[in-house]
Amino acid sequence: MTDTITIEDIQAAAARINVHRTPILTSTSINTLASENAGVPLELFFKCEPLQKTGSFKIRGATNAVELLTDGEATKGVVTHSSGNHAQALAYAARARGIPAYVIMPTTCPQVKKAAVKGYGATVIDCEPTQESREKTAEKIQQETGATFIHPYNNPHVIAGQGTIALEAIAQEQHSFDALIIPVGGGGMLSGNSIATKALSPKTLVFAAEPLEVNDTFQTFTTKERTRNKVGAQSVADGLLTNLGDIAYSVVMKHVDDVFVVTEKEIIQAMQLIWGRMKLCIEPSAAVGLAVVLYNKAFHHRVQKDSIKRIGIILSGGNVDFANAIHLFEKFK
Amino acid sequence: MTDTITIEDIQAAAARINVHRTPILTSTSINTLASENAGVPLELFFKCEPLQKTGSFKIRGATNAVELLTDGEATKGVVTHSSGNHAQALAYAARARGIPAYVIMPTTCPQVKKAAVKGYGATVIDCEPTQESREKTAEKIQQETGATFIHPYNNPHVIAGQGTIALEAIAQEQHSFDALIIPVGGGGMLSGNSIATKALSPKTLVFAAEPLEVNDTFQTFTTKERTRNKVGAQSVADGLLTNLGDIAYSVVMKHVDDVFVVTEKEIIQAMQLIWGRMKLCIEPSAAVGLAVVLYNKAFHHRVQKDSIKRIGIILSGGNVDFANAIHLFEKFK
Repeated sequence: MTDTITIEDIQAAAARINVHRTPILTSTSINTLASENAGVPLELFFKCEPLQKTGSFKIRGATNAVELLTDGEATKGVVTHSSGNHAQALAYAARARGIPAYVIMPTTCPQVKKAAVKGYGATVIDCEPTQESREKTAEKIQQETGATFIHPYNNPHVIAGQGTIALEAIAQEQHSFDALIIPVGGGGMLSGNSIATKALSPKTLVFAAEPLEVNDTFQTFTTKERTRNKVGAQSVADGLLTNLGDIAYSVVMKHVDDVFVVTEKEIIQAMQLIWGRMKLCIEPSAAVGLAVVLYNKAFHHRVQKDSIKRIGIILSGGNVDFANAIHLFEKFK
Repeated sequence: MTDTITIEDIQAAAARINVHRTPILTSTSINTLASENAGVPLELFFKCEPLQKTGSFKIRGATNAVELLTDGEATKGVVTHSSGNHAQALAYAARARGIPAYVIMPTTCPQVKKAAVKGYGATVIDCEPTQESREKTAEKIQQETGATFIHPYNNPHVIAGQGTIALEAIAQEQHSFDALIIPVGGGGMLSGNSIATKALSPKTLVFAAEPLEVNDTFQTFTTKERTRNKVGAQSVADGLLTNLGDIAYSVVMKHVDDVFVVTEKEIIQAMQLIWGRMKLCIEPSAAVGLAVVLYNKAFHHRVQKDSIKRIGIILSGGNVDFANAIHLFEKFK
């Protein structure tokens, strides 16, 4: 199984992983704002993964991958390189199975993030803040320990785990989404959930939401030529800086109906609305879906053309430094 | 009906009001912390009213009171004095019924709070920041408009509405709470929910949580003599500054099993844990219940003595200025 992840894989993942069934929340005032901006009445349904174990959806894929290891593999542990939500998720999943986790994190990574990963019982290994050093260090640890490398998104078991978000959401709202909007970085969440959606609710359109500053998926989707972000490109949505992975690429070209981009200011304004109106601490990366609904003109045209009314939005995670969030609210107000 | 609010009143309120059925959330890491501190394994269940319409439970009581007006009364509107969550809730409930709301707010009240109330379509009327001026202004508006005064807590319809929190929570968790912890200020939420709990789940102990700085309910409960806070007493939990109301007093003495107090620092530390671990923006007043569970020694003794394991905690609301919240986290760290 490489790029042939099926709905059965996702259903098996849902039965296998022990995670929260996160609530779907709604906000009358955000519906009103979205409807005014789009020029047609919209109803938004927020699938709330900030309320998930470890504060993000990443625990779904990490747990599925860890649980699928054979006992022989599991004993030797798991390894990954990540300074984000996948690191915490893999540490948590490994602890839940009682096996070691080794997480490679760059020396530039904030101590608070390292502490969170250590708090879940993982061993943190420093590397230089370059892709080469990350990969070399991970290889070295693999050779020394025999641990299995669990990629944050380019791994079919991880993708199948992430797809359980849409599986749940479609059941919770009884198949009633006209569209589902999913943030995209490496594309693990996008690909897993587009497979689930097209299998279970084929009439639901699947849209990706991406920061304009790191819009490789938009470029790839629009030009049909695989495109990468400029090296060093940055966004406030620090969970979405990655280029689309290989498996995600093939799934996205097949199952995703459109990709929409949003500016830095739009992301932070949507984030602040969710904090203020819904009382959820979300990270910037989680706000791109609502930013598309509120501010993207191409999306508004699409909504009108396709008579889209009921829109599911995946809020991906809530792991954010509070003081930094307030700083961003001030900066982009 | 004055102080004889029954479970039937609360059940009727639940059928009458159109509000969110808020989720009950759990946190493994907070359970671990609570269990370590208490010396026995505890499981906490957070009933999340910050996710309620208008950002707090107050919409339950306000809606129940507004819906119970006769058409003749309703036409003339409603009036209250509040600078807090009841003001927003009453404004929202009045708009939902399509009737006027007049809210008396002191000149010292932040513009952002007045803007929120106006945003729900209410008329804001300024008064001096004294109890006398509030009441006189409210009377004047009543005489001028014929509007019905809806007290924030000393009103049986409001109390019955607030009691729907426990009604829902007990159904959601299938009667399985050993104890339910409820914040207390004026006592509307405490009295309504203690009536509901004792009627539906008589084995569940009902505990009140109160800031030490404004501990009139603790004093009243402990000494059996009605006690008031010192004039001007302050707490970070600004929703709980009020003295226990008359109706609440009689209910509390009958139905509440114990009252526990917490310090300012304990409140803010519990608040920060809920922001950080659960990704919920809660206001300081909402944190007193968790603060009791984590830090109150008398509570820990009670937990051990009565073999309490499964504890429901009402998180009351999330209407807080974010920058101020971060400031409090810094101040009390």
